[in-house]
Amino acid sequence: MAGKKVLLVYAHQEPKSFNGSMKQVAVEELSKQGCTVTVSDLYTMNFEPRATRNDVTGALSNPEVFKYGIEAYEAYKKKALTSDILEEQRKVQEADLVIFQFPLYWFSVPAILKGWMDRVLCQGFAFDVPGFYDSGFLKDKLALLSFTTGGTAEMYTKAGVNGDFRYFLWPLQISFGPEVSSEEQRKVMLASWVQRLKSIWKEEPIHCTPSWYFQG
Amino acid sequence: MAGKKVLLVYAHQEPKSFNGSMKQVAVEELSKQGCTVTVSDLYTMNFEPRATRNDVTGALSNPEVFKYGIEAYEAYKKKALTSDILEEQRKVQEADLVIFQFPLYWFSVPAILKGWMDRVLCQGFAFDVPGFYDSGFLKDKLALLSFTTGGTAEMYTKAGVNGDFRYFLWPLQISFGPEVSSEEQRKVMLASWVQRLKSIWKEEPIHCTPSWYFQG
Repeated sequence: MAGKKVLLVYAHQEPKSFNGSMKQVAVEELSKQGCTVTVSDLYTMNFEPRATRNDVTGALSNPEVFKYGIEAYEAYKKKALTSDILEEQRKVQEADLVIFQFPLYWFSVPAILKGWMDRVLCQGFAFDVPGFYDSGFLKDKLALLSFTTGGTAEMYTKAGVNGDFRYFLWPLQISFGPEVSSEEQRKVMLASWVQRLKSIWKEEPIHCTPSWYFQG
Repeated sequence: MAGKKVLLVYAHQEPKSFNGSMKQVAVEELSKQGCTVTVSDLYTMNFEPRATRNDVTGALSNPEVFKYGIEAYEAYKKKALTSDILEEQRKVQEADLVIFQFPLYWFSVPAILKGWMDRVLCQGFAFDVPGFYDSGFLKDKLALLSFTTGGTAEMYTKAGVNGDFRYFLWPLQISFGPEVSSEEQRKVMLASWVQRLKSIWKEEPIHCTPSWYFQG
């Protein structure tokens, strides 16, 4: 939808991968719609996944015992978070839609993307007490997890080797096994992704709830 | 149990934290039992969570299109994985019991620990085709997730703000909200942990299944 802002948080090492294609067609389709699309290409950015003392510039509020969550919250309020976190928070803040594009690693997001969540979505920014997720960063925004799997869809059924995928991830946009699919099937997956993006603005906003973050 | 080997994969930045105490009492109790305990202190090691081309020494099997899973599998077979991965695989291989000690971040493991899982538990080592998890790295080993939460136990019930924790993590050893507990309550948690460790060798071995890795 013209004028909308989209943040695409992308976690794949290889531009020629299927994830790379999913990212690319999303950028093209959304740009064609007149949206402004920003991509956070985590591997290219060499995004830091580790939550450490380095995330706080200046003095800690308790230098004796380091508590990451508390220090990040205090630093958020004092605008003393490190610049890479501030930059991502700014992108999220501006976005109407946040898309996460990644391959499934051990039934969850790759560590580099988990680090983005751990560090960017700090208290004060992503949630607060009281209210928790109600006042969260996704309020009045759309969000979409788009990911690929190594196995086929059959492997993620109740009888399959990996179990029913509904038990471990809210199924939003799954590209099952592009590596074990034909070129034709990959094209269908990309086309269905573009189709989804065409009507994305009509979808109901998703608030940041624990079930959304089931596999955070 | 005397003679047993234990690997403790520990992911907290602060030795004086409750996680630090859980780690410490585990080392003490298990050593007292005559076990050999190895600790992988991920933050102190500055463990690399990002799965990249750097994980493979020497030439890639496909330099044109980088596929992490395939390259890691090939490198595992050729003993060409980078040394930090090899070292962790050796520790896992030797261990009779693997304990993961961490604070819950966004309903899952911290990124640094997710990176340990993504990189150390590669195909060939942790699973293979066919057979998948049956031939896995935890076969005939014990494993235990021991983690702390920020919120209280009430917040992780069906009616609570975070939802029922059984939906997002197999409850193995949870230390609910040590930071919001009294010193007395923290002592009870540590004591119950030590108690659990006393009879740990009588527990049934857990195989590496998707449900175990629910929050991988």
